[in-house]
Amino acid sequence: MFSFPKQTYVERRERLSQAMGSGLLLFLGNGVASMNYPDNNYIFRQDSTFLYLFGLDYENLAAIIDVDNNKTIVFGDELTIDDIVWTGVQPTIREKAAAVGVTETRPMSELQKYIDAAKAQKQQVHFVPPYRGHTKLWLQELLGKEAQPSLELIYELADMRNHKSAEEIEQIELSVNVSRQMHLRALELVRPGMTEKQIAAAVAEVCYREGYYFSFPTICTNHGETLHNHGYIHELKDGDLLLLDAGAENDSHYAGDLTTTMPVGKDYTARQKEVYNILIDTYRKAAASIRPGITYRECHVNAWANIAEGLKGLGLMKGDPMEAAEAGAVAMFMPHGLGHMMGLDVHDMENYGEVHVGYPRGAEKDKRFGFASLRLARTLEPGFVFTCEPGIYFIPDLIDQWRAAGKFTEFINYDKLEAWKDFGGMRNEEDYLVTPEGHRHLGENKPCEVEQILEAKK
Amino acid sequence: MFSFPKQTYVERRERLSQAMGSGLLLFLGNGVASMNYPDNNYIFRQDSTFLYLFGLDYENLAAIIDVDNNKTIVFGDELTIDDIVWTGVQPTIREKAAAVGVTETRPMSELQKYIDAAKAQKQQVHFVPPYRGHTKLWLQELLGKEAQPSLELIYELADMRNHKSAEEIEQIELSVNVSRQMHLRALELVRPGMTEKQIAAAVAEVCYREGYYFSFPTICTNHGETLHNHGYIHELKDGDLLLLDAGAENDSHYAGDLTTTMPVGKDYTARQKEVYNILIDTYRKAAASIRPGITYRECHVNAWANIAEGLKGLGLMKGDPMEAAEAGAVAMFMPHGLGHMMGLDVHDMENYGEVHVGYPRGAEKDKRFGFASLRLARTLEPGFVFTCEPGIYFIPDLIDQWRAAGKFTEFINYDKLEAWKDFGGMRNEEDYLVTPEGHRHLGENKPCEVEQILEAKK
Repeated sequence: MFSFPKQTYVERRERLSQAMGSGLLLFLGNGVASMNYPDNNYIFRQDSTFLYLFGLDYENLAAIIDVDNNKTIVFGDELTIDDIVWTGVQPTIREKAAAVGVTETRPMSELQKYIDAAKAQKQQVHFVPPYRGHTKLWLQELLGKEAQPSLELIYELADMRNHKSAEEIEQIELSVNVSRQMHLRALELVRPGMTEKQIAAAVAEVCYREGYYFSFPTICTNHGETLHNHGYIHELKDGDLLLLDAGAENDSHYAGDLTTTMPVGKDYTARQKEVYNILIDTYRKAAASIRPGITYRECHVNAWANIAEGLKGLGLMKGDPMEAAEAGAVAMFMPHGLGHMMGLDVHDMENYGEVHVGYPRGAEKDKRFGFASLRLARTLEPGFVFTCEPGIYFIPDLIDQWRAAGKFTEFINYDKLEAWKDFGGMRNEEDYLVTPEGHRHLGENKPCEVEQILEAKK
Repeated sequence: MFSFPKQTYVERRERLSQAMGSGLLLFLGNGVASMNYPDNNYIFRQDSTFLYLFGLDYENLAAIIDVDNNKTIVFGDELTIDDIVWTGVQPTIREKAAAVGVTETRPMSELQKYIDAAKAQKQQVHFVPPYRGHTKLWLQELLGKEAQPSLELIYELADMRNHKSAEEIEQIELSVNVSRQMHLRALELVRPGMTEKQIAAAVAEVCYREGYYFSFPTICTNHGETLHNHGYIHELKDGDLLLLDAGAENDSHYAGDLTTTMPVGKDYTARQKEVYNILIDTYRKAAASIRPGITYRECHVNAWANIAEGLKGLGLMKGDPMEAAEAGAVAMFMPHGLGHMMGLDVHDMENYGEVHVGYPRGAEKDKRFGFASLRLARTLEPGFVFTCEPGIYFIPDLIDQWRAAGKFTEFINYDKLEAWKDFGGMRNEEDYLVTPEGHRHLGENKPCEVEQILEAKK
């Protein structure tokens, strides 16, 4: 089981305690998630906040950092002989906790008592937003229905987790490289007559063999214009594009996240190649612009403008590309953001609320279509790790809806667009670290230029 | 998306309504289950009760059968354009419901109103036990914290679902055959120097390519004595056994469930072969005894006695084998039951409570170690589908604990057993249908005899 050196966790907890200054910080670990009855479970995934501060990759634990009384306690119950018959021997709770620098442990039944005593002392209890039903119920029991997540704790944790350490970046890069293997496997296999399901299965095999699990559900589809397409129901034909958005996490649970759009047959069609070259040009320019001090909103709007310029060349857009971008008109072709923070979660800390992670403190999101999907907009700082993933899509329902509503007729040539409704969608995604000097591409090179893709398919 | 003909669901609901006679039957479908933040999800698995009665394999639906007012209503919300951009176009709720014979649909916001009105009319609301935190919270909101599952509804549904129809058996057999392919793949690949993880990944590839998903988390380990070993952390060596317990469900979501215990190297060792032959002899006799009228408790105790007799031959047990079995002493070597019902859940309807499914109405379980793990004990009836899965394990912690407690010294030769603590464990599992005449083995033959296993490994 992976863990960083004990000192890493001790330092993270000390830093958090100092930043918070007072209060009781409550962290509930995950249990297994039931599939179709209580004991039939999905693969266990520990909560990322719990992993970050305690590194304990075991089910059914909780922990408290009692800042006021300078105490850190892990709560959990030892296995019975019945448990051991089914799940094997494990270290004791005390041994597990000691390995990450926590010397005090108590049975789970003590957690409620500890919290009740703290509340009686008027200590404030801080916790981050839960995302599993089980944890929501547990929090209700422990704290009552009215308890609310702590914005202060969210801000402090987001600050810490947004700045990746060298040892975190090392793990991320391992996961990116497993993710890359998954993409190379798809490139190697894909050909007309295969199914999305067969490719997705082969990608899973590489992920499970080399990594721990998917960092998110694989998207593997010839309908890339549906952004989160998890059906795997189509047969792949010559002339189709296959969009693969797939990533692994290794046993440290840091994520990789890559997207490749490949031709199913021997080559892209001429029309596909035109759009693909706009995409890759946009990707290259966006990636090149990553540096401390620029906002990712600016990188995003520049990418939109670049796409608008390219589509203008194809007669699909008109007017000033930057004006089209700032107005939100390019959201028709790229309705998602340029990227998102990545770490222990592939959308890092999305359960904290993406505005608290990807925007400056106190900022609100621009609610306009397209802009509202920007997960990351803030000024970039060294240590940030995130994706750069421009896409170009032709979404029939969106085209019809905007056309009917007369939206952005000054920027979009709807008449010409009709002939493109069967085009599908494409995206290229890779992972970046902001360095003091600019940026570093994470992981080995993944094919993205036309020639690289065709070479990898051979 | 799979579904049976409309009439199948209509008939199931009519039969249930007639059996219940009155009341409001409430069925909550599943949503997606969050992995590490709200939108990062495990693969969607619909609730099996919902699938059985409504066949709608979509997220975020609910349904009511209002027996008193002869109404069946599906509740759900249509997709917005934002949803469509991310997940693609779907049929409307009305279209989905019509496909399974339900003509009335309402938005989800109407569900609470319908229930409140029914409660005001003193209608009794029936529901089956929830197993996901999300559903527990939802039920609390809809019905209040004190609402309890309905034993009457559990009994009626268990009666219906325990007797499989021809169309259900056809789906089960498809899933068993995918499961078989997974085992053949492991047999084909396994050799010294490989890891559990590599085999588990290859098995997953077959499952995803040919089926829909695992029917349960794969067990793939050289430590088969740990019954639910999901670690995949060991390297496989010559002389090791690999226990693979793996099954698929197809897109109907009916399960298959098979176990094979194979040598990692070219052959079983002499000691392994002795135990393995006892296991397969026990398996053959147990399977041969399956017929209407016999209790599965009897089949189980006979299997224990058969193992006791074999282990007596190896000097590990002593005394009368049947007495050892009835006393519970053989639970040392096989602490689980001979099998479990299998259908839309691999442990069919385990969320209803296994005593309500695998035991006669009103019966209680024998609480003794080993007996308490019998999931299926009742008199067998035509249409029952279940596993037959004897195992023989040497569990070091259990041996130590029983020895220290002086348990069953009249049946167990603890001195001899010391030398077997490193043996590991083995199991053979296949799936059976009870027919009026006796039984039918489901799916094509999976290798289980020594020669078949060695042949499949070539």
